[in-house]
Amino acid sequence: MKRLKWSDTPSAERHDALRRPAQQAGDTITAAVLNVVADVRTRGDAAVRELTARFDGVALDAFELDAASIAAAADAITPSLRDAIDDAAERIAHFHGAGMTQPYTVDTAPGVRCERVLRPIRRVGLYVPAGSAPLPSTALMLGVPAQLAGCRDIVLCTPPRKDGTADPAVLYAASRCAVTRVFVLGGAQAIAAMAFGTGSVPKCDKLFGPGNAYVTEAKRQVSMADGGAAIDMPAGPSEVLVIADAGANPAFVAADLLSQAEHGPDSQVILISDDGAMIDAVATAIDEQLRTLPRADTARRALESSRLIEVESLDDAFDISNDYAPEHLILAVREARRWLPRVDAAGSVFLGDWSPEALGDYCSGTNHVLPTSGAARFTGGLNVASFQIAITVQDVAPQGLAAIGPCAVELARAEGLDAHRLAVALRLEALPA
Amino acid sequence: MKRLKWSDTPSAERHDALRRPAQQAGDTITAAVLNVVADVRTRGDAAVRELTARFDGVALDAFELDAASIAAAADAITPSLRDAIDDAAERIAHFHGAGMTQPYTVDTAPGVRCERVLRPIRRVGLYVPAGSAPLPSTALMLGVPAQLAGCRDIVLCTPPRKDGTADPAVLYAASRCAVTRVFVLGGAQAIAAMAFGTGSVPKCDKLFGPGNAYVTEAKRQVSMADGGAAIDMPAGPSEVLVIADAGANPAFVAADLLSQAEHGPDSQVILISDDGAMIDAVATAIDEQLRTLPRADTARRALESSRLIEVESLDDAFDISNDYAPEHLILAVREARRWLPRVDAAGSVFLGDWSPEALGDYCSGTNHVLPTSGAARFTGGLNVASFQIAITVQDVAPQGLAAIGPCAVELARAEGLDAHRLAVALRLEALPA
Repeated sequence: MKRLKWSDTPSAERHDALRRPAQQAGDTITAAVLNVVADVRTRGDAAVRELTARFDGVALDAFELDAASIAAAADAITPSLRDAIDDAAERIAHFHGAGMTQPYTVDTAPGVRCERVLRPIRRVGLYVPAGSAPLPSTALMLGVPAQLAGCRDIVLCTPPRKDGTADPAVLYAASRCAVTRVFVLGGAQAIAAMAFGTGSVPKCDKLFGPGNAYVTEAKRQVSMADGGAAIDMPAGPSEVLVIADAGANPAFVAADLLSQAEHGPDSQVILISDDGAMIDAVATAIDEQLRTLPRADTARRALESSRLIEVESLDDAFDISNDYAPEHLILAVREARRWLPRVDAAGSVFLGDWSPEALGDYCSGTNHVLPTSGAARFTGGLNVASFQIAITVQDVAPQGLAAIGPCAVELARAEGLDAHRLAVALRLEALPA
Repeated sequence: MKRLKWSDTPSAERHDALRRPAQQAGDTITAAVLNVVADVRTRGDAAVRELTARFDGVALDAFELDAASIAAAADAITPSLRDAIDDAAERIAHFHGAGMTQPYTVDTAPGVRCERVLRPIRRVGLYVPAGSAPLPSTALMLGVPAQLAGCRDIVLCTPPRKDGTADPAVLYAASRCAVTRVFVLGGAQAIAAMAFGTGSVPKCDKLFGPGNAYVTEAKRQVSMADGGAAIDMPAGPSEVLVIADAGANPAFVAADLLSQAEHGPDSQVILISDDGAMIDAVATAIDEQLRTLPRADTARRALESSRLIEVESLDDAFDISNDYAPEHLILAVREARRWLPRVDAAGSVFLGDWSPEALGDYCSGTNHVLPTSGAARFTGGLNVASFQIAITVQDVAPQGLAAIGPCAVELARAEGLDAHRLAVALRLEALPA
């Protein structure tokens, strides 16, 4: 962990302290994914079968799970895990349902009715990774808003286990949110299959979900390809920035930093405090907690590029945070709510000592698919609107055309677009008396 | 114009009839833009100056307009154009203001308060083209929602005229919506300057607006570049699809088709009708109107790749339209509103005979920056939310942690993320009695 005193740090070093490692996929990954995507696009299921044998070590004839095996998953997990998935799903539905974009109608002039109507995206593809462990929580974070949006076709891919089956917790979560078709299919081949369609996997309009570097690169490639699919957002390694004051609990802060660091060696972890003693105490607590952490090796590698930054005032801390635009921002400060208006850019914010980031990952109700790599400067996380299309409508009566037609004629003339002018002028001349 | 009878058309030809020409920039454009972007990124204003001299034929020392020259624009246009811009701005603000995303708060469990708060994107860059003609309407369509979003820094670039000034109608429109800085700067160099910043042009977080193939390719490149800027949406040539029944007015339909065709030779124009005589009548009306149209040459080239499709029923027409997902959809049918529920994917819909598409371009109140190239299958047009960040917040009291903490512990255990579990468990143990 690198420690900095901000006021003593020259601006070039400040820049470095906040710089994320470049997240572009290496040439090797880009090339490998180009091959996979082209192969799946050309040869469909045959390619998917070969790639699954090669990358997952599983020989499968078919990838789709039938309804019976999905239903059986409920009995393959403990009742307490089933309850936890149910509880989380309900809170996620509660929060997401309350914030849905609404249709509306406005008469912008008498006889000029303008509207916004909403439609679900016809077919969406969800990717639930299972790299270091299967992630039932991700199935909920993608599936619940898709269901609320009203999507009719919800396709889900998750990597096969060595025996060719899928994790039952993921399947149970999927069954909770009206996923219509489940495929045991992972990696870049799953993304390519959903983007272009194969004999067995239907072509999807938009793809959602996190994944490793291959999955991320595949999403990028299919989103750029002619005839590919849209994607939810640019994805990078997970990040947390904690702002702690002198009153924070060092053990809590250390645990929050470690719960980000354990995600992967490229996770980004930053602590900012106006109290040097707090920084020392957190560093000590991290060392202690690392001793018993199963994923300590991963966390240690992430911590190598982490930063502990001492500032002169909390105001400085918020300036730094707004420039960095973290995926997760924990405000381990007294009267945390008072500071919320200072947050200009972040994915999700956790107020005070009793709001660990892990609650947002699982069950507070907010979404855990959030902007990384500074994308919080210009976008928010996943929500129901991510699964919908907002269409505008205008319904103009003769009276309305008479009212605003001349305005359009004037502007069309200024812009030299005569057919535009004519489309309005012809109707103005034909208006019923 | 190619005419098809849908029921007689083999499925391969159906596919071709609805296929848009590939819109990827040619290698020449890609390479030219790569050079421009790299040059501006490296050499800043010096590069911008040279590129403007080369591409716009104007030698400028400085690109920013001062407040006085922007204010002077109001007197440089006719009062009727000023009024039209004012009227349009008011209706756009009315419609966009009524549909703004709202902050909200939900207690997903006692003591678990979850919220969505909204922040304006810190600095946005608007591009207003002036290729065949300056487009004051585009300045309004970008500037009004940016202002409603509360953006503090609104930068606008528009190409210089031969004398180095900007079009006064564009400037007047910009002044109406709190644009903070205006630069006479066009093309890929304007996009690169706003994405990376130069000595004089500030670096923007997100770029908006239409443009020619160079501008579009520059937006694509800077949105992929490490340290670049986000962009509003993928942009392609403009499109209209008209569904007309036997009762439609052929002259109106012809004018609507032509007002799309005059945008450019690559514009997409499709007519679908269940009445062969209506298709004949529209084709005749197009020929007539073309005779006096100033931009007839452009329109004729666009019409070469247009389609007139005869279907057996209006239901078929809506199926075709939903697959195509047009930017603009005109329902020139009786009882048009009754058909609106059949629309699954479109940018903006125009109901009935008195709702010409040109009203949406200028002054109905809806936005004219809309998804093209089939992107209406997964996204809507520009709106206030495009200029905002939605941030989720959780504020958990000890009681709330006690309520939902065990759920997070259970899920963290299932996912093998022990530090996540610990971050919650440590707090559960420390809960005040």
